[in-house]
Amino acid sequence: MSGCPFGGATRRRFLSGAAGITGAMGAAGAASAKPAPSTHAPLKPTAAPDSATLPFHGPHQQGIATSQQAHVYFAALDLITETKADVARLMQAWTLAAARLTAGQPVDAAAEDPGQPPGDSGEVSGLPPARLTLTFGFGPGLFSKDGHDRYGLAGMRPQAFADLPRFVGDQLVPERTGGDLCIQACSDEPQVAFHAVRQLTRIAQPYARTRWVQNGFLAGYAPGETPRNLMGFKDGTLNVAAKDPRALDQLVWVGDEGGWMKGGTYMVARPIRIALEHWDTMKLGFQEQTVGRHKRSGATLGGDSEFAPLALDAVDKEGNSLTPENAHVRLAAPETNEGAQILRRSYSYDNGVSFVAERWPPWRQGMELDAGLLFVCYQRDPRTGFIKIFERMSKFDMLNQFVTHVGGGLFAAPPGAQPGRYIGQELLSA
Amino acid sequence: MSGCPFGGATRRRFLSGAAGITGAMGAAGAASAKPAPSTHAPLKPTAAPDSATLPFHGPHQQGIATSQQAHVYFAALDLITETKADVARLMQAWTLAAARLTAGQPVDAAAEDPGQPPGDSGEVSGLPPARLTLTFGFGPGLFSKDGHDRYGLAGMRPQAFADLPRFVGDQLVPERTGGDLCIQACSDEPQVAFHAVRQLTRIAQPYARTRWVQNGFLAGYAPGETPRNLMGFKDGTLNVAAKDPRALDQLVWVGDEGGWMKGGTYMVARPIRIALEHWDTMKLGFQEQTVGRHKRSGATLGGDSEFAPLALDAVDKEGNSLTPENAHVRLAAPETNEGAQILRRSYSYDNGVSFVAERWPPWRQGMELDAGLLFVCYQRDPRTGFIKIFERMSKFDMLNQFVTHVGGGLFAAPPGAQPGRYIGQELLSA
Repeated sequence: MSGCPFGGATRRRFLSGAAGITGAMGAAGAASAKPAPSTHAPLKPTAAPDSATLPFHGPHQQGIATSQQAHVYFAALDLITETKADVARLMQAWTLAAARLTAGQPVDAAAEDPGQPPGDSGEVSGLPPARLTLTFGFGPGLFSKDGHDRYGLAGMRPQAFADLPRFVGDQLVPERTGGDLCIQACSDEPQVAFHAVRQLTRIAQPYARTRWVQNGFLAGYAPGETPRNLMGFKDGTLNVAAKDPRALDQLVWVGDEGGWMKGGTYMVARPIRIALEHWDTMKLGFQEQTVGRHKRSGATLGGDSEFAPLALDAVDKEGNSLTPENAHVRLAAPETNEGAQILRRSYSYDNGVSFVAERWPPWRQGMELDAGLLFVCYQRDPRTGFIKIFERMSKFDMLNQFVTHVGGGLFAAPPGAQPGRYIGQELLSA
Repeated sequence: MSGCPFGGATRRRFLSGAAGITGAMGAAGAASAKPAPSTHAPLKPTAAPDSATLPFHGPHQQGIATSQQAHVYFAALDLITETKADVARLMQAWTLAAARLTAGQPVDAAAEDPGQPPGDSGEVSGLPPARLTLTFGFGPGLFSKDGHDRYGLAGMRPQAFADLPRFVGDQLVPERTGGDLCIQACSDEPQVAFHAVRQLTRIAQPYARTRWVQNGFLAGYAPGETPRNLMGFKDGTLNVAAKDPRALDQLVWVGDEGGWMKGGTYMVARPIRIALEHWDTMKLGFQEQTVGRHKRSGATLGGDSEFAPLALDAVDKEGNSLTPENAHVRLAAPETNEGAQILRRSYSYDNGVSFVAERWPPWRQGMELDAGLLFVCYQRDPRTGFIKIFERMSKFDMLNQFVTHVGGGLFAAPPGAQPGRYIGQELLSA
């Protein structure tokens, strides 16, 4: 066998191509953000997608109002570069790459040279993109880290981009928490989502290192049916209507108040481990009271169907609430949160098994499922979205006996890019 | 909220139902095992499956000659019971449950009683089984553990069920290695495979504890196309033809020599981590020489198409082999292994990232992909199958620079069960 296996960095070739993207900020903002009533309808996966290729460019990033695909690969990275110009170079390169990948093209269009490492690792060659979307976010560390304004961007941090407080019950593992940048790759084909993040983290190598990742899946229920989570309940019956532009403008897209974030949104991503073995020993009636819905039908307690309005005031003959005071559905409902709503876009996750010493009788010890929910939500302002809703839920939700938030973070997802511009340009070229 | 959340064990109800299965061993063996030439054709996933429900009962277990589904959930368990009767009870219960699950039914048909834990966790309610197959295997520990013949079965251990030797390069982690029992769940829907193993391990709780699990996926290439693995190469071009009964009888199904294993087969399952970041820096020509095929087309080196016969003797003008002496394809080929062949049925796996100190320049340290291949193969005799082939490959395969076997085991998968009988009955009722 002849020849040194260590080839030159094709990555460099790719990045130099990215330097050609310039241009002043265009009118890429969102439509005006008039308050609008949101409607209640599930965010469903599309079993028969209209198109295998979703448009990358536009006023908003894709993968947010997009009907959920069957698979997600989420990655958070730490910046290791010292300069804002490098961050801009990375976002330029990511934007170019994302436009190619979501169109089903290899990340590097260069000819295949046996004397060079392949520009694209190739595991999706011949596969359609299967509705691949790529969504990028900025973590708090882009604005300041350990009190240091390393990129001169501290003054650009929006008020709405508040630090997440420490919630009751949080057991955040550092290796699954935070990140200066994030990528959400979603596709109906897991290998496509994996491949996309693999190319993007390779491109990022001079500038950023992977901090944590989490893949996930959504069960392929038929259109019109709400998917079930691993607790066996329909999840997503009440959600912001992702196809209602007025609801999105009111609740999801940042408006004129946001400066460079106008047309963007804030993303919370949190892996939530569920004690499934424990849950499985609970009586059906208790499970239903905990969630606040019937397990099989998804109907509200006291209501008669899944999509009926919540009947939180319904009582039994003795005047007791049919939906317990601390039921999950009650604490999550807009009605009990002064109208607060978030666009949820979560996936189940399955990390195999790990050792657990149970906190419940009979206090078994052993390998248990490390599975649960990669909770993902989008909102116009986290202070009046996730933080407002979850501060109360983290204290009182009956479901907390079974779920533990083990990591995650809050990210500012900038507006989308028009052709010739790059994601985050409104911030990084300011 | 009233009522104690700790319900009674529905599991017990289920197991007592299983006790009704009895009956003498029937003529459930395989067809006669005449040697037959195997043909070369890929084992492909079916993009448009003939049927969402695959038959559970039959002379052979399902999930072996079955066209590969898109997802796998593999689990290995340690027996904790002291008696052979309990092992038989477990296999009875698993067989009953597997017949229900693969037919798309909840694992427990009992009525839903609010005062009892649900018999089935419910996360596939309303989902089709999506070609779910369940395949069971026995590990060496069923026959003796730490030198102790705990179930009186040591004398029943077949000669062919040899211990796997320690191969060159093995870095087997105890928490991902071994197991007295295994379950391979495959489905086109990941939530269905997950659900099946969750129900089966719940049923097993009095008798066995989960030791390790690994999920995996196979890219959804069109029928007739060989799927690509995470190295970006087509994987499975040369394989035992799973639709050729003569090849299966010769190479996969145990014949008259096997006693209670007649109609069964031996399964090797090994998670193989691939240094993908390292691989991605290799020149395309080196990648192709390592594998022994062209990356894009899958054609052999010196051959002109993917399905052309291997041209291992082809040389260039100077008389050098076009396919290097240590190329993966050469060392794996039946031609260089005295005809030895195995039925491969592997999946890619993706366990996120973990910390790696690289063994190659520039010796980076950081979070790298914990991804690779859940290698799975089936064979009539591991001594002339996997062990024979891999002993040489583990020493010489150029691919070994990039792959590490991190766990796994060898399992005896008994013959299939006819209705009224259970998997493993030939051994456990002897």
